[in-house]
Amino acid sequence: MKLKFGRKVISVEEARSLLFQCIKHGETERVPLSAAFNRRLAGDIYAEHPVPHFRRSGVDGYAVCAADIKQATPENPSILHVIEHIPSGTVPKLMVFSGTAARIMTGAPVPDGADCVVMLEMTDALPSLDVGISSTQVCIKKNVPVGSNITPIAGEVAEKELLLPLGTQVGPGEAAILATFGYAYVTVFRKPRVAIFSTGSELLNVEEALQPGRIRNSNSYMLAAQVEAAGGEAVIMQALSDHVDEVEAALLETLAKVDLVITSGGVSVGDYDVLVDLFGRFTGKLLFNKVAMRPGTPTSAALWENKLLLSLSGNPGASFVGFELFAKPLIKAMSGCPSPCPEAITAYLDVDYEKGSAFPRYVRGTTHVENGCLRVKPSGIDKSSIMVSIKDADCLIQLPAGGSGFARDERVLIYPIN
Amino acid sequence: MKLKFGRKVISVEEARSLLFQCIKHGETERVPLSAAFNRRLAGDIYAEHPVPHFRRSGVDGYAVCAADIKQATPENPSILHVIEHIPSGTVPKLMVFSGTAARIMTGAPVPDGADCVVMLEMTDALPSLDVGISSTQVCIKKNVPVGSNITPIAGEVAEKELLLPLGTQVGPGEAAILATFGYAYVTVFRKPRVAIFSTGSELLNVEEALQPGRIRNSNSYMLAAQVEAAGGEAVIMQALSDHVDEVEAALLETLAKVDLVITSGGVSVGDYDVLVDLFGRFTGKLLFNKVAMRPGTPTSAALWENKLLLSLSGNPGASFVGFELFAKPLIKAMSGCPSPCPEAITAYLDVDYEKGSAFPRYVRGTTHVENGCLRVKPSGIDKSSIMVSIKDADCLIQLPAGGSGFARDERVLIYPIN
Repeated sequence: MKLKFGRKVISVEEARSLLFQCIKHGETERVPLSAAFNRRLAGDIYAEHPVPHFRRSGVDGYAVCAADIKQATPENPSILHVIEHIPSGTVPKLMVFSGTAARIMTGAPVPDGADCVVMLEMTDALPSLDVGISSTQVCIKKNVPVGSNITPIAGEVAEKELLLPLGTQVGPGEAAILATFGYAYVTVFRKPRVAIFSTGSELLNVEEALQPGRIRNSNSYMLAAQVEAAGGEAVIMQALSDHVDEVEAALLETLAKVDLVITSGGVSVGDYDVLVDLFGRFTGKLLFNKVAMRPGTPTSAALWENKLLLSLSGNPGASFVGFELFAKPLIKAMSGCPSPCPEAITAYLDVDYEKGSAFPRYVRGTTHVENGCLRVKPSGIDKSSIMVSIKDADCLIQLPAGGSGFARDERVLIYPIN
Repeated sequence: MKLKFGRKVISVEEARSLLFQCIKHGETERVPLSAAFNRRLAGDIYAEHPVPHFRRSGVDGYAVCAADIKQATPENPSILHVIEHIPSGTVPKLMVFSGTAARIMTGAPVPDGADCVVMLEMTDALPSLDVGISSTQVCIKKNVPVGSNITPIAGEVAEKELLLPLGTQVGPGEAAILATFGYAYVTVFRKPRVAIFSTGSELLNVEEALQPGRIRNSNSYMLAAQVEAAGGEAVIMQALSDHVDEVEAALLETLAKVDLVITSGGVSVGDYDVLVDLFGRFTGKLLFNKVAMRPGTPTSAALWENKLLLSLSGNPGASFVGFELFAKPLIKAMSGCPSPCPEAITAYLDVDYEKGSAFPRYVRGTTHVENGCLRVKPSGIDKSSIMVSIKDADCLIQLPAGGSGFARDERVLIYPIN
């Protein structure tokens, strides 16, 4: 009974720190760029060339010498000889000098000699005045300063600049950068494989018919969705029985094949809390078995065969919260995230919350923005046994221990989920 | 030239409304529950049974008659005969009556006759006092009221309650609900297939070596990541040439195979803006070709062979913004989202912003929460030609037309991205 009742309580932060001491560096893999979306880079990405790598026109128009159009107005336009047409993707053949212009398209290289580009809308093409092939003329109706509509070489990115540090998650903007520098393949961290076990003889598989006194295993699917949202690959295992020998065998076999094992249930003071029995006899090292938090006080963790085993409290609300506080940071770290721990932000409490607590309480919350302020309220019924309101949570509200509750409009710390 | 310069300008909202009139209802497919994460439900999900479907104990302890323990204190405990042990997953065989108790585990059915459960921690098991098999006694050291630690039948969910309406996206909480009601397979909307074309002879494939005056095709990868974040399946196509016949053939062939075609580039006033030429001669119906917005004024769209063709402005920033304003709502709607249009929230501008604009301006922004207030600033250099700062945007700041800029601490409307 000692493991059940005589437990040493530690804080959420201490528990997290113990877990993080056991993380191993993630393996990497090389995937096509399109398969790298949402993954994390396994190395720093530097600019391998400047962007742009030529003087780039920002508009469709005419590349000219600014000195030639200083006096240009609609009434008194500057008339220049058009010596060349430069579509994007081509290279100018001629140099622009005083009295001449090159017709140029957005994204095309500005020819030597030209020091500004005038937008097409501020010009009029004139019919040829003589018989020469390149002799079409253009009226420039506006004066623009030197440099106008030209992005200089390296104007956007300098060569060798660090653009995406190791651990960056690949979103649309990162994908554009990787494509720009020719990364048809990208080296990313492998997704950690996370095995999920629920425990309890009352659990039916999702496809089984309901039976008296028994319920379907919903925690495993909830946790699998959380694992995938955190960047892991979820493997839902057959629920564990109440027999410690069977549980020991199933966990040992699975630990060898995955990066992390998460269980839910079986860690409390009940007669059949099989993980408590396991921790009393196994060859692993128990890291903690009581955390100063509500819900999920009996959350436990062990290092076993060099792998982490995180054992969440079995009530749906406690499993959800325990995952967010402990499993998500672990999975994010294993996926290469450089700052995996949740960062608290401040929000205004939108309702009175009257429950005090001996331990810090993590309440599932729903946020909204009102007039520039972030407001939060508990998501429906917040009892750890209640599963149906989990879907409405977009954050955890952290309420400190003690006190007799919190008043509407008080500021509280929240941890956003996703 | 008429299509290039004589365009009729419409608002972002009008443009979106024209697009939405052309959307067809999405097809559905049946997938295993684990494959349904992040997908949207194609039908309403009702509770097929109450939850819990039996009187459920919320703790490990003893099920008793509250009347028997009214006077119970640690000094003066009530002593009751334990008539049964009820693990989770089993069904009680005996009725609890005055003077008796049943040992019960969390999640197990409370036996008839008992009207409360006392936590194990408030009890002491006593050694047997006589020789009867079920005669072990328990000391109850605390009075708890009727109903304590019992969730009544339907206490969490009533039978036939609507839990997840059509279009709900499946997250962890939804997955738990679906598992609870036995949905081993779930009918969800099929992911819309979205073909992505960039245009321009200057574009190199990502695996090609850099060449003078040419750049690698980065927009297609950016847009593909945006498509996937919006819930679509992205198909990156070979970039389009500047030849209108080839472009027409490529688009026609692709329209037949996908739900939506997105192009970037080729919609402006340049000599090689091939989509403008196409719209001047094709058999489809042009919906619009100028939108009152910066960047992306020449954003265009057409209905062609009963499919939508959305043609974004080619600058990276304009493509990004145009996707968020038009393509994302379309893809979300086609994926079954019941409220696909972005909803504006208010934030405080964190810097002065000095550019006025003839049209409403959509500035890529980065938000943070400071002391309960949502603050936003432009993400790096906000010029539509600048690709490198797209990665930092988590919202679009909508700045109304006119005026000479906006001051720090003014309130602005923003559209969060994801």
